[in-house]
Amino acid sequence: MTIHCVTPNPALDVTYRVTALEVHATNRVSDVTERPGGKGVNVARVLAQRGADVAVYGFLGGRTGARLAELLAELAPGIAQRWTEVAGETRRTVAVVDASDTTMFNEAGAPVADDDWDRLVADVAARCRPGDVVTVSGSLPAGSAPEQLARLVTAARRAGAVVVADTSGPALIAAARAGADVLKPNLHELLDATGERSVPVAVAALRASGAGAVVVSRGEEGLLLGLDGRTVQARLGRVLQGNPTGAGDALVAALASALAAPGGPSARLVGALPHAVAWSAAAVLSPVAGEVDESTVAALLQEVEVKES
Amino acid sequence: MTIHCVTPNPALDVTYRVTALEVHATNRVSDVTERPGGKGVNVARVLAQRGADVAVYGFLGGRTGARLAELLAELAPGIAQRWTEVAGETRRTVAVVDASDTTMFNEAGAPVADDDWDRLVADVAARCRPGDVVTVSGSLPAGSAPEQLARLVTAARRAGAVVVADTSGPALIAAARAGADVLKPNLHELLDATGERSVPVAVAALRASGAGAVVVSRGEEGLLLGLDGRTVQARLGRVLQGNPTGAGDALVAALASALAAPGGPSARLVGALPHAVAWSAAAVLSPVAGEVDESTVAALLQEVEVKES
Repeated sequence: MTIHCVTPNPALDVTYRVTALEVHATNRVSDVTERPGGKGVNVARVLAQRGADVAVYGFLGGRTGARLAELLAELAPGIAQRWTEVAGETRRTVAVVDASDTTMFNEAGAPVADDDWDRLVADVAARCRPGDVVTVSGSLPAGSAPEQLARLVTAARRAGAVVVADTSGPALIAAARAGADVLKPNLHELLDATGERSVPVAVAALRASGAGAVVVSRGEEGLLLGLDGRTVQARLGRVLQGNPTGAGDALVAALASALAAPGGPSARLVGALPHAVAWSAAAVLSPVAGEVDESTVAALLQEVEVKES
Repeated sequence: MTIHCVTPNPALDVTYRVTALEVHATNRVSDVTERPGGKGVNVARVLAQRGADVAVYGFLGGRTGARLAELLAELAPGIAQRWTEVAGETRRTVAVVDASDTTMFNEAGAPVADDDWDRLVADVAARCRPGDVVTVSGSLPAGSAPEQLARLVTAARRAGAVVVADTSGPALIAAARAGADVLKPNLHELLDATGERSVPVAVAALRASGAGAVVVSRGEEGLLLGLDGRTVQARLGRVLQGNPTGAGDALVAALASALAAPGGPSARLVGALPHAVAWSAAAVLSPVAGEVDESTVAALLQEVEVKES
């Protein structure tokens, strides 16, 4: 079975190293690195490392888009790249890293046309086979309506795929209404999108809107899975120091990996929860997003505590 | 006659607009613009606007280099682009502009090989006709020896061209020793490269090394030309508010324009000095580097004061 990882708004992630960022002055950049960015790209890379059959989708354009595809092919030649080519230039993010911390500059990116969405939706739907998994990760391109994401979710489900959506705001609500099988907001995104203050109420609201299950990532508090009237929690017994970027993507990868197997989604999700905690924690311990160490995952899995309430 | 404008270390100049730069936080970039950068590119653009026969040279590579060439062709289709293609990616500069000021991030750029310098030197020399002008502007690529610049100056002069060099540090000294016809340091660059504290002494030192003439740009104090034992100064009778970026490049363009005409360099340089002040001042009044307004130049020319000491 194939896992189709959609990143509607990918980016080329550029890192600049400087000694100490000086505002309103000239900073000499000692080192430049470029990486293929976007949450769905990280999901796909984690899955590809673990031997899954993976493809990436999303809007890509211009020289920056071509550079992203080139770097991804070098890093992960096993991933099938099925980008929807668009007229606008793919955006960049620039992370300026100095001795004490990171300063981010996030380009908004070019809008994409309705016709571009038509092509993306048609392409994902045409390639999905029953039992495949579709993940949709991150923000939408500037100016895209949440309904475009809903169309993608609907088309993928109609093609027989299980859909996992990791997004925020109105796009999260749209994915719920379109019947996404799993939503993966973090705590802030859950409360922000629903306008609720209580986690159980917010999870229930998303499920009432149409979502099959909701997995809430809560940092050190671990994961909370709400489905079919059940609430299952899983967490690591200790706090990890590291790089949280990409932890949510590793989590989505773990869920997608579990779902791309025979059996009903409910049983598989409960069984996947400890793995999701372990993959996510291993991502925190990894220096870069999109990579997890397999033996670290195995070790951390022993430490995961699960409880049902 | 052709003016050959060499930029050994060009850059794609990117401007990010943000509301207020926040260090060690995430900044949303509201607007991104890209421009072909490099001091010699600015020189060529000013000359092309005034109808000169102009070509640009320098090292260009990768997708960023291709983007620079594409943008330059759009902005100034009359400029002949004779770049030396290299393996490394052309560097970028990122200017983050907020409500109060600009924060610059300057990439160092990739080193170029000795063989790349061979090709650049051979290409410039092959295209120079006696009486042509060669300008060399800005820094050298990371790791390039000043002797490479000396080779370029020597080859261009041997081909019969008049050479104007606007560079700094050891490269300025190397250009002097190679017999550049005109050096154009600013006051800081003059004193820094020679290690002298007095302008007349530093100018004499560069001429003793082999430079034909030295034009020192001193901001509001105007220009000082030293040649053949003469010292001529020219300045505007008032102080201008504006954007000094590109003023030195407009100055070099004015000198190159005057030198690309019949007559001995000495007489032409003295005659060119008021024009150089006016072009440079007009560049300060222009919102972007590489552009000067012709009627502004004509008006400012009336205000230039010249004295010989």
